[in-house]
Amino acid sequence: MDDGADLVSTLHKDRRELLDNVRGGTEETTTGVIRLRAMANNGALEYPIIAVNDAMTKHFFDNRYGTGQSTIDGIVRATNILLAGKTFVVAGYGWCGRGLAMRARGMGANVIVTEVDPLAALEAVMDGFRVMPMEEAAPIGDIFCTLTGDINVIDQHHFDRMKDGAIVSNSGHFNVEVNIPSLESMAVEKRKPREFIEQYILPDGRSLNLLGEGRLINLAAAEGHPASVMDMSFANQALSLEYLFKHAEELENMVYTIPEDIDREIARMKLEEMGVEIDTLTEEQETYLASWEEGT
Amino acid sequence: MDDGADLVSTLHKDRRELLDNVRGGTEETTTGVIRLRAMANNGALEYPIIAVNDAMTKHFFDNRYGTGQSTIDGIVRATNILLAGKTFVVAGYGWCGRGLAMRARGMGANVIVTEVDPLAALEAVMDGFRVMPMEEAAPIGDIFCTLTGDINVIDQHHFDRMKDGAIVSNSGHFNVEVNIPSLESMAVEKRKPREFIEQYILPDGRSLNLLGEGRLINLAAAEGHPASVMDMSFANQALSLEYLFKHAEELENMVYTIPEDIDREIARMKLEEMGVEIDTLTEEQETYLASWEEGT
Amino acid sequence: MDDGADLVSTLHKDRRELLDNVRGGTEETTTGVIRLRAMANNGALEYPIIAVNDAMTKHFFDNRYGTGQSTIDGIVRATNILLAGKTFVVAGYGWCGRGLAMRARGMGANVIVTEVDPLAALEAVMDGFRVMPMEEAAPIGDIFCTLTGDINVIDQHHFDRMKDGAIVSNSGHFNVEVNIPSLESMAVEKRKPREFIEQYILPDGRSLNLLGEGRLINLAAAEGHPASVMDMSFANQALSLEYLFKHAEELENMVYTIPEDIDREIARMKLEEMGVEIDTLTEEQETYLASWEEGT
Amino acid sequence: MDDGADLVSTLHKDRRELLDNVRGGTEETTTGVIRLRAMANNGALEYPIIAVNDAMTKHFFDNRYGTGQSTIDGIVRATNILLAGKTFVVAGYGWCGRGLAMRARGMGANVIVTEVDPLAALEAVMDGFRVMPMEEAAPIGDIFCTLTGDINVIDQHHFDRMKDGAIVSNSGHFNVEVNIPSLESMAVEKRKPREFIEQYILPDGRSLNLLGEGRLINLAAAEGHPASVMDMSFANQALSLEYLFKHAEELENMVYTIPEDIDREIARMKLEEMGVEIDTLTEEQETYLASWEEGT
Repeated sequence: MDDGADLVSTLHKDRRELLDNVRGGTEETTTGVIRLRAMANNGALEYPIIAVNDAMTKHFFDNRYGTGQSTIDGIVRATNILLAGKTFVVAGYGWCGRGLAMRARGMGANVIVTEVDPLAALEAVMDGFRVMPMEEAAPIGDIFCTLTGDINVIDQHHFDRMKDGAIVSNSGHFNVEVNIPSLESMAVEKRKPREFIEQYILPDGRSLNLLGEGRLINLAAAEGHPASVMDMSFANQALSLEYLFKHAEELENMVYTIPEDIDREIARMKLEEMGVEIDTLTEEQETYLASWEEGT
Repeated sequence: MDDGADLVSTLHKDRRELLDNVRGGTEETTTGVIRLRAMANNGALEYPIIAVNDAMTKHFFDNRYGTGQSTIDGIVRATNILLAGKTFVVAGYGWCGRGLAMRARGMGANVIVTEVDPLAALEAVMDGFRVMPMEEAAPIGDIFCTLTGDINVIDQHHFDRMKDGAIVSNSGHFNVEVNIPSLESMAVEKRKPREFIEQYILPDGRSLNLLGEGRLINLAAAEGHPASVMDMSFANQALSLEYLFKHAEELENMVYTIPEDIDREIARMKLEEMGVEIDTLTEEQETYLASWEEGT
Repeated sequence: MDDGADLVSTLHKDRRELLDNVRGGTEETTTGVIRLRAMANNGALEYPIIAVNDAMTKHFFDNRYGTGQSTIDGIVRATNILLAGKTFVVAGYGWCGRGLAMRARGMGANVIVTEVDPLAALEAVMDGFRVMPMEEAAPIGDIFCTLTGDINVIDQHHFDRMKDGAIVSNSGHFNVEVNIPSLESMAVEKRKPREFIEQYILPDGRSLNLLGEGRLINLAAAEGHPASVMDMSFANQALSLEYLFKHAEELENMVYTIPEDIDREIARMKLEEMGVEIDTLTEEQETYLASWEEGT
Repeated sequence: MDDGADLVSTLHKDRRELLDNVRGGTEETTTGVIRLRAMANNGALEYPIIAVNDAMTKHFFDNRYGTGQSTIDGIVRATNILLAGKTFVVAGYGWCGRGLAMRARGMGANVIVTEVDPLAALEAVMDGFRVMPMEEAAPIGDIFCTLTGDINVIDQHHFDRMKDGAIVSNSGHFNVEVNIPSLESMAVEKRKPREFIEQYILPDGRSLNLLGEGRLINLAAAEGHPASVMDMSFANQALSLEYLFKHAEELENMVYTIPEDIDREIARMKLEEMGVEIDTLTEEQETYLASWEEGT
């Protein structure tokens, strides 16, 4: 999820002026964190980073609930297709992918998940989804969406096997998750039946529909995440900057997981704003949890 | 989840005879890990522990899918109650609690979650459940189940407000999650209408039904976890013992998280056994993921 | 659901020119059928009507899956609100209402149903929804949508109790389901924060957001039903006209339920088009079903 | 669903003694109604029948929610299998079948539906299930359950293709839905690994597990429907007998659908007992619904 990137950089800019002493940055996206960790491993990172994306109040909400809903929204706005009864292929079962899988099922689609990680794949199976290689999903799917952070997840040999009329979209990191150059080179003709649809006509007569030029479909065709998702992401950014400021001396040029205290405090404030009350541990309960002498 | 404890200790015993050089242990349950960590913090732990419970192939399956299904199973066997249309209160939204909440909803119940942790509470809200203090849930619930690892989560002031005929059960760590002594002292009479039900008659005429004497209901009234859940837990135990054996020299008297390699390998084997194939990263994709120079 | 009304009347017009001998009409909407039946009861109906809306291939699809998805679509386009974690009040548990309730839950909302019919209300309870009078739902709901075919289902005494920021919409028959004149008279100010939102500021400072002027939100803010829903409705229309033509002599000035043969034939064609194969009764099975002498 | 048959006949017997003037009977089960209608068509029915099964308060609850839950219960008690991640084949998408499909999905299984009726099949597709002929489902399924009212729905050519270890059960009308004689004749050996499992070893080494001798698994291995389901069925029986008594003169030797007034009254009483309140039409609303002159 890269939406809000401009806002975030603006926010950083403003904050930096206020906080002259802050040395470091915060990173909002899964993909960004992966790259910054790669940079740190290569010794190329020149200041500390707080991985805001690691916050539960970020990835549970923004990546899962936000991307889940807004991707459905983008696909429906682009196509006005009925999801009930369709076979919906979700590539990737990370936070974004499971958000989309959950929502596609919630709209009545029959969902297939593709994965490269056995742990995520197994969880998808146990969540009741079919899991299979993209090669097998290609000829079955009505709608495809990639959310992997990787490239060419849908590639020429997949296009070769897709049904006439299949819909291909991306809600991952960039427009490289679908191999568009390959699709371009395969097509004998290209049409634009609706605003966010490029229809590629293949030599055998099949047409494949690419949404939003393979860009993040929730941003291309819809409005990105609702404010009630982004509020927590931005709260994480703001409190991370404060943390960078306060701990400037100790932090090295590494990628740091966001402190759990910040995460928990944001959750507490969000519940309060939603009017949801929860239980508090009694003294007796706190003592019990910290002990190991009681019990069988 | 403490089921299988006897099996586990037997397994440990057998393995210890084989592996004379192993110094350390493995721990299967959330509660056990909490206590062992408390012991380590107190300097009371005398050998290294691998926290098997931390494995995704353990807690995702055993705690979530296993406890989820087997708790429903235990409650239905004990009561033969129809879950559809009932208000079902789940205390605790950890792995076990969310497993049960998911399954109770899947059986048509309207689920309320109680929590003390704002992060877990917020996730429960976003998953579509009602979240409130137990005090407010008490007069609404038809069925209650605790899965918290704590004591007196359902206490006298909750019994005071419950509906006539309410069902109270536990699928957490021990029979202390429900304050049974308090219920005993409140009651003017005690009946046994079915095998796993103790019915407490209160002075105002209400009757409250405690299942399986407050012990883990999936063990008390059902058969605990299916073999297809426990297989992964035991695989984690076995491979953790091998790890303790191989790394005997380096390990200190601490609680170690299970190595992710073991976890992933077990997931891979499980998928194979289930006949599920997944994708493999191409060389191009691996390179891309490790890089930070490409992309926008 | 009145969408497609213009298309339908055009279709009728064209068909009438072709089929000079057809005497009668077809009716697509629940509300239309109710009114035509009222006309028939009053002796005011001047030709036979086939109630296309009664077809399972109409109301199961158009009313349930079509309205369910497109209403969510309309509300999200109008507001860009995150549905996960919101309390969503669905007024009416007819085919449209249950379609919306199912989809709102599928998007992570906590759904409350209001009803006047005990059978529908009981079914909503057993489907896991909370059911209560609108009076009680009013202060709890974040989003309201009416799908009842009736008037003033949300009325002044409900507005009085709603939360600040509540969203009110209609996906029923007309813009009379919400008492808008009453809302207009209560408000001290009216704003337009987004294209499809009228925001009413009440004397006590609360603001209530009415979507699409209370008109069918799936038509006002989205695109109505997808083609893959309307195809079956139109197939019912076309085959009903053929039926009217073939049975012109026998039909009286009444509202007729669509013949089940037509309904089943359309389902058969739709499955074929979707590439779904089903089983066929063997001779042995047909004989068994028609018999009453075999069996215990 | 034939459970409660003995209770029902006892009830009939008692009532008959009380109500000497009642001429007729009531029928509780789908299969019974099919057979009685076949008898009526053959002129073999000698007194009027009220088809209690037609009541929404009967088939929505007993067939759908009751059979749904109790079939899951029976299969889990018989096998202690984990349902999450399993492929679960439901034969028949009538009220019982959709009840089971809904609950199997709710327990995390991936559900396939087989059907002979295109309308029911199409609805299953739109509900997000895979639909295919049993021939194709046979090699994929882990667990099979028939709920069709027909014979040999799972037959020799299906057994031929099933996976080693497949589980076969019935929750339909009789033990004829699965062709057991054929399975007996195919097997080279028969074992009994658990109380309600007959394991058939086939010549190629595969073993197939038949539950409860093919009898209704919710009765064979579990306790049939909960009291909170049967209460409505029996209320329908009781009020139908009263109706037979009051309308003795007018009724012919036919199968009558239960009067909707009875159905609605039972729903009203059930809601009251559950503490659920609903809305009541205002006079203005009643007038509006009966009119056809208002509105656009």
